[in-house]
Amino acid sequence: MQRTNFESMHCPIARSLERVGEWWSILILRDAFQGISRFDDFQKGLNIAPNMLTRRLRALVEDGLLERRRYSDKPARYEYVLTSCGRDFRPVLLTLMTWGNRHFAQEGISMFLADERTGQQVEPVLVDARTGELIDREHHTLRAGPAADERLRSRVEFSRQQRLQGRAPTPSSSP
Amino acid sequence: MQRTNFESMHCPIARSLERVGEWWSILILRDAFQGISRFDDFQKGLNIAPNMLTRRLRALVEDGLLERRRYSDKPARYEYVLTSCGRDFRPVLLTLMTWGNRHFAQEGISMFLADERTGQQVEPVLVDARTGELIDREHHTLRAGPAADERLRSRVEFSRQQRLQGRAPTPSSSP
Repeated sequence: MQRTNFESMHCPIARSLERVGEWWSILILRDAFQGISRFDDFQKGLNIAPNMLTRRLRALVEDGLLERRRYSDKPARYEYVLTSCGRDFRPVLLTLMTWGNRHFAQEGISMFLADERTGQQVEPVLVDARTGELIDREHHTLRAGPAADERLRSRVEFSRQQRLQGRAPTPSSSP
Repeated sequence: MQRTNFESMHCPIARSLERVGEWWSILILRDAFQGISRFDDFQKGLNIAPNMLTRRLRALVEDGLLERRRYSDKPARYEYVLTSCGRDFRPVLLTLMTWGNRHFAQEGISMFLADERTGQQVEPVLVDARTGELIDREHHTLRAGPAADERLRSRVEFSRQQRLQGRAPTPSSSP
């Protein structure tokens, strides 16, 4: 496999992918959010090979997204539950779902986010936590932070130059 | 590689992963959002093998996330720009970045979302587009839609049962 050590890239997106950049990991987290916690239930739901599931669960535990807890002594049995780091992954799953529903649900919606109180479908959108303003590409851009390395800094600078020259996809062409 | 046809799973998260469930694809999209459009620039920025880059770009074009455009006739040269489907992927990148910054930025923030007008860091959060209410696990849950297959329907029902029995991570244990 072509795994590269993304950790060596300073970008926080690359770092996140270092933890969940395998299809299975994201689907396991999705199922954990739906209350699945036992090996057999993950296995049955995902139709995943047991050795692959073992490997992905172990990685998610090592990376601090799942916690392995003993729930039975005789025989010794374990379950896997989301840590607070794992629970913080929920917005990624919801934005993936929203994108999938918008573009790849030819025959209709198979899963959606609902308001538990009304049953109505909810469209989740990103806003500025402080002001409530919708995040868009015209007003919200990426910047290099104090811990950025040279590569990341130059990428952000390249991006700024592209914007200034109007070569980057312009805000007006964005949705 | 252990690629499974996620398309056969009806879940919109699985379907999204079918398009971008490779580390490289997500990093290529990230760079496209920063205005990178040419093969050599992607290659230099990502330090990716050319044949791998060719393969990932082709898949992103086939899946409708990037458009391949000729920008020079002699010699014939092409650039890759985000389609509207590709631009709609931005919230996924921003939530991945936010999660990475929160949990995996030990030595400080290397990249952040800023308000272009003030330069201040912005924390993007998910809200209900209609009401502006914060999305949380107590009030917003996943439901099966009309196009759900049996497997997805039973997974959602399992999740509901877990919640009712209090076995699922309870809302009060969520952040």
